Amino acid sequence: MDGATDILLQLFAILVAAKIGHEVLRRLGQPPIVGEILGGVVAGPAVLGVYGVNAETTLFAEIGVVLLLFQVGVETRLHDLLRVGPTALAVGVLGVIVPFAGGFLAAELAGGDLALAMFLAAALTATSVGITSNVLRDLGALDSRGGRIILGAAIIDDVLAIMILSVATGVAAGGVDPASVASLVVVAVLFIVVVVVGGTRILRRRRSLLTDPVFADGPLLPGMIVMLGLAALAAAIGLAAIIGAFLAGLVAAESSERDALQAEVAPVAAFFTPFFFGFIGAQVDLAGLASVEALGLLAGITLLAIASKFIGAFLGAIRGGVREASLVGWGMVPRGEVGIVVAGLGLASGAIDARIYSVVVGMAVITTLVVPPLLPRLIRQSAGRGD
Amino acid sequence: MDGATDILLQLFAILVAAKIGHEVLRRLGQPPIVGEILGGVVAGPAVLGVYGVNAETTLFAEIGVVLLLFQVGVETRLHDLLRVGPTALAVGVLGVIVPFAGGFLAAELAGGDLALAMFLAAALTATSVGITSNVLRDLGALDSRGGRIILGAAIIDDVLAIMILSVATGVAAGGVDPASVASLVVVAVLFIVVVVVGGTRILRRRRSLLTDPVFADGPLLPGMIVMLGLAALAAAIGLAAIIGAFLAGLVAAESSERDALQAEVAPVAAFFTPFFFGFIGAQVDLAGLASVEALGLLAGITLLAIASKFIGAFLGAIRGGVREASLVGWGMVPRGEVGIVVAGLGLASGAIDARIYSVVVGMAVITTLVVPPLLPRLIRQSAGRGD
Repeated sequence: MDGATDILLQLFAILVAAKIGHEVLRRLGQPPIVGEILGGVVAGPAVLGVYGVNAETTLFAEIGVVLLLFQVGVETRLHDLLRVGPTALAVGVLGVIVPFAGGFLAAELAGGDLALAMFLAAALTATSVGITSNVLRDLGALDSRGGRIILGAAIIDDVLAIMILSVATGVAAGGVDPASVASLVVVAVLFIVVVVVGGTRILRRRRSLLTDPVFADGPLLPGMIVMLGLAALAAAIGLAAIIGAFLAGLVAAESSERDALQAEVAPVAAFFTPFFFGFIGAQVDLAGLASVEALGLLAGITLLAIASKFIGAFLGAIRGGVREASLVGWGMVPRGEVGIVVAGLGLASGAIDARIYSVVVGMAVITTLVVPPLLPRLIRQSAGRGD
Repeated sequence: MDGATDILLQLFAILVAAKIGHEVLRRLGQPPIVGEILGGVVAGPAVLGVYGVNAETTLFAEIGVVLLLFQVGVETRLHDLLRVGPTALAVGVLGVIVPFAGGFLAAELAGGDLALAMFLAAALTATSVGITSNVLRDLGALDSRGGRIILGAAIIDDVLAIMILSVATGVAAGGVDPASVASLVVVAVLFIVVVVVGGTRILRRRRSLLTDPVFADGPLLPGMIVMLGLAALAAAIGLAAIIGAFLAGLVAAESSERDALQAEVAPVAAFFTPFFFGFIGAQVDLAGLASVEALGLLAGITLLAIASKFIGAFLGAIRGGVREASLVGWGMVPRGEVGIVVAGLGLASGAIDARIYSVVVGMAVITTLVVPPLLPRLIRQSAGRGD
């Protein structure tokens, strides 16, 4: 543990930067999360460079968003989530199809090859539920119909993203195997169904399960074991780790210790989540965007990303009225860390170059920054129609 | 964050292994911490190999022990610590001199060169206050006179360790610069005095400091910022990061939010500390110890480590009576992660070879495992003399 100085300093720097950003934005009456991301931009490689993207800071960011989604899962009732199932399905599917088609067509029209078009389209379809659910949580709106639709749609979205990413990776590698793509999707759906049905059944039969072990002074550590296990399993089969964490929270919420679990998880999540938001900001590469051409491309792709996701998700949710559909459409817009991961995979496979990578990361961060400020008003308007 | 699967799986494995060990030892009426370390031996490279020692797992272990010492600091009263100052000073100094002399003489008698003798002696002087303070905490004895002496002595111990390590590193590199050794020690002592005097003065003048920022819904995040900052600073000047974390806790305890801070830190520390204990176990290299000669060496060095530290610390604490001196002497015995770090530095500098490294790590883990089972009785006996 002798190399500790540097990494402790980086964690200190990002926490301070995120919290200064939080402080400033909160005093301005704006969403703190935007300040935490901007704090990451300032502390990160783009400006001060006291904080870097490496194995350790990536881990803290990953655990931050895993804990956030676990916490959201604990606070969500499965019953409520299933009630909005059909709408969430429509939002998830249309919210993938429209951005995918938009991204694909735009890349083809601009003369990009098939692999580039596939990765750009994949990056445009990704939704980062971490950002929206954090804002919904802060505003006490996770429990609203719109909030539940967004959560449900994010799960559907991620299953479809597996399919698109495996096709894109196949195209970049020179060949797509339909059977392996299909089996990935089947495994992902099976995982979700088995965890939700099996997990809730086990805990409903034995509600004290989380505090039965002698080592469990409270439900926290058994909960963390379930969270890490399901997050790892989800990541292993190609889903986002946060989907596993969310399902773990959903299942753990069936325990008799739900309230104690919420109370114990809250400080752990509060400690970790700033590392996630700061990490997103630290991805921004200002040097890579320092040309008129790159800025033009960034503006075009960002507008396409916002418009296509909003339209797709809006259409999926339109049955619930314009106000609810506006909230859902806007809530699905942030690409956050998911868009950045997809762009990174495209860069690694050679399908997209460093310039496009910087642009896609910029798009992911901008879509993430523009959403929180408008959400409070959309939530109030949507709540007006009753629930 | 695409490489997440593997590291999530490793964190899951070590948490499960540590908690199974905890469960078994607690059911046997033994200290859980021993089970968590043994869980790390089983999950780690020595047996199952599902958990490895890498940048990410090291970070979680480091943050685990940093949080543990921060928590201990918050629960310690500076006033009480200063009251046992003279005894702690004697324990710290004698608890370093006797093991150092023992280790140095043993290495010289066995025909080792000066650099080997210096590093072996340095590894024997190291004290891991993390282990003892965890057991004292579990038993509610942090607040006892013996507990405070151990904490105070550990700080003195670490200042002396800087001096010894810098001399040892100098010897291995071919030359010792007395001026630079002296300046390291002066800086370390200054750091401790400035943090304690300055920090407590600031917080006593403004007791609400930790919750003054708008971002602070409670004292946790400001406390974590102070903890990470002082841990990084301590590590930067050559002290152990945990000394900085302990001082941060000591200072933060002067806040009006002390109780709220304790309540918020508890779940975060509970989540992290198993990664620290498991990590210690995972260092064990059974293959490197699989010979009669290595086992003989291990037995000899371990006995020397236990006897020399016990005798030195016992003599330092004898003014408080035999029972208190026995508790303090025994409580100083664990070498834990500090002994492992020193051995690692010796290995890196070429002063000790891979075989001696395995033996020293084995000694560090054994001294750590033998202490907790005897502490409860020593604490009861010592408490008998009143406080």
